[in-house]
Amino acid sequence: MEKAGGEVVGKHRYELDTPCLLIDAARLKKNLRIMQESVSGAVKELRPHAKTHKCSTIAQLQLDAGAVGVCTAKLAEAEVLARRGVERILITGPVVLPLKGERLLNLVEGCGSLMLVLDDLEQASLLSSLCRERGVRVDVLLDVDPGLGRTGVDPSSAKDMGMRLADMPGLHLRGVQAYAGQVQHISPYEERRNGPLACMNRAQEVFRALRTAGLEVDVFTGGGTGTFDIDTGVKDLTDLQAGSYVLMDAEYRAIGSALDRHRFILFEPALTMLTSVTSCNQEGWVTVDAGLKSLYRDGPQPQILYPEDRPYAYDWFGDEYGKISFEGERGTLRHGSVFELIVSHCDPTVNLFDRFHVVENERVVDVWPIDLRGMSS
Amino acid sequence: MEKAGGEVVGKHRYELDTPCLLIDAARLKKNLRIMQESVSGAVKELRPHAKTHKCSTIAQLQLDAGAVGVCTAKLAEAEVLARRGVERILITGPVVLPLKGERLLNLVEGCGSLMLVLDDLEQASLLSSLCRERGVRVDVLLDVDPGLGRTGVDPSSAKDMGMRLADMPGLHLRGVQAYAGQVQHISPYEERRNGPLACMNRAQEVFRALRTAGLEVDVFTGGGTGTFDIDTGVKDLTDLQAGSYVLMDAEYRAIGSALDRHRFILFEPALTMLTSVTSCNQEGWVTVDAGLKSLYRDGPQPQILYPEDRPYAYDWFGDEYGKISFEGERGTLRHGSVFELIVSHCDPTVNLFDRFHVVENERVVDVWPIDLRGMSS
Repeated sequence: MEKAGGEVVGKHRYELDTPCLLIDAARLKKNLRIMQESVSGAVKELRPHAKTHKCSTIAQLQLDAGAVGVCTAKLAEAEVLARRGVERILITGPVVLPLKGERLLNLVEGCGSLMLVLDDLEQASLLSSLCRERGVRVDVLLDVDPGLGRTGVDPSSAKDMGMRLADMPGLHLRGVQAYAGQVQHISPYEERRNGPLACMNRAQEVFRALRTAGLEVDVFTGGGTGTFDIDTGVKDLTDLQAGSYVLMDAEYRAIGSALDRHRFILFEPALTMLTSVTSCNQEGWVTVDAGLKSLYRDGPQPQILYPEDRPYAYDWFGDEYGKISFEGERGTLRHGSVFELIVSHCDPTVNLFDRFHVVENERVVDVWPIDLRGMSS
Repeated sequence: MEKAGGEVVGKHRYELDTPCLLIDAARLKKNLRIMQESVSGAVKELRPHAKTHKCSTIAQLQLDAGAVGVCTAKLAEAEVLARRGVERILITGPVVLPLKGERLLNLVEGCGSLMLVLDDLEQASLLSSLCRERGVRVDVLLDVDPGLGRTGVDPSSAKDMGMRLADMPGLHLRGVQAYAGQVQHISPYEERRNGPLACMNRAQEVFRALRTAGLEVDVFTGGGTGTFDIDTGVKDLTDLQAGSYVLMDAEYRAIGSALDRHRFILFEPALTMLTSVTSCNQEGWVTVDAGLKSLYRDGPQPQILYPEDRPYAYDWFGDEYGKISFEGERGTLRHGSVFELIVSHCDPTVNLFDRFHVVENERVVDVWPIDLRGMSS
């Protein structure tokens, strides 16, 4: 077991112990740059989601590249980011009180640039009380449900709730959040286009109504990787919460885009996984060392990038094993032969590992801890 | 975030921060006892699989309850168990050389009671060389494929390979392993019964042939929770590699048993998960804080045990959220309301957490680290 990154720095990418995750540094940087430029070009800000990469190092790279802040889904993720010195964190899911009140207020006290979302008046009132007791004030957003039905208030009642929040001591209403998760993976692009616009337009009406009522709200945040070039067309949207663009996965690559009906080609697969042959006594397939516990089974099949000599197909083969099938003879495949693949769904797969191996010119140049891994509470 | 167990010991089970895993100590002990007694009653040994619970504390409890040894699927799991002082470890998957040779030999040196499996002559020869270089000898089993096609050699060529292994210096051939993973979840019981017997009988022929040839092999290990009372009927089987029996999950509970056609009732659900309401603005469902990253989506839907006032149905609602649906009014459900459920598939779900909260008489009495979590290499 590798305990420290130092042991693997300098190794060739295909000499690493498996299964493991690789990040191609050049592709990562390109993805960071393209998304930041796209968003800036639309006169918006980028507030990327750390729930995808679970890595404070990447979160800081995103801020350094020009992001206005970073998002987390859970309080525990924000706690780790804050401990690592990452600032301007927005927790995009409601943090439930009183269950998590003590932890939340400790974070508010230690991280002045924190922003929270609220979708319930009773919860807002509890938060207001807790903040007053501690003598702190926290920035909050009204979470508006764009039709997903997961979190957020219905747009029809959102303005009233926003007015109430604005009056609560200890809270500083900054604006509105809306995440249309239900439309991120709709394919092809043309069909994906109309849903998000309709969803986001309803949230935009809430944002405008709060402004018209005299509130100085300055944040209207939402959207994701799948709709990034649609969301940036929403006039009042101030910032985009894209996550997967930085790593990419088989699921997002299959959704198609404005440029290519069948593929989402603007962002490159910066994240890949290595797995190696652990048994080869069969004709037509070999057994590899990545199964359910290393490669989360969600979404399409992984795409095998290496070796490139012929088509290979991965399928899960239990908790610890995968089955890689091929036509013809086994050829040069033997125990320890390495496969490199694009994972099915990056977010839950990253959450199965403790570190990324960062590769430049085929060699490991750094190891980044996945320090938000398992932070689900 | 809980950093130490001490902070939660004494809390009521439904006061814990969520999502989290609970172990009911009484049920765990009962499961340990029933399996050990069943196996002992059949004049067999138990060699339980630690890949299910990923917890050195439970592995030691299994040894203390009478197990002849414990299994791991991966080298990295065995490394952690050995560091924790757990002995008599069998790694049930082939460890690939030369990729993992240095790590493996370090473990062999430090853990004299280790046992490995082999399913390839070239790999066996490499291991033999490495052992001679280090001046050590390691116990090995011939992995026989009972028709799953994942690891192991075909029974038809197994005897010849066994004879070759027995001659290799540095290796001590102890016997045969066969795991019929393809038949563990066949339901109902009657249909499950015949497949395993046929599979295991082919491996038994290999074991007998090695004995007839004069080898002093004393281990014929295999089987699992789903077929435990079938495997114990295989005459020469010496020990059973059951794993899930100790925790149980929705998948195993649904397979039916000799006693009940529809349910597998002998073992009780010792493992449960707590999740709590994070948003409740909808009619007919609430949003809870366990999604793909806390509750692995594999197998049947989770079963909700608490609250018991009416039927509830869980479904996944993205990476971080679940949707719990119900008929009628929301009633007493509100933010922070807790649900307790049986997870779909215990192995990959346990691998998403860092600790078990051990509960007795409704209160947390201990916290056990899931110290084999993420040990996939």
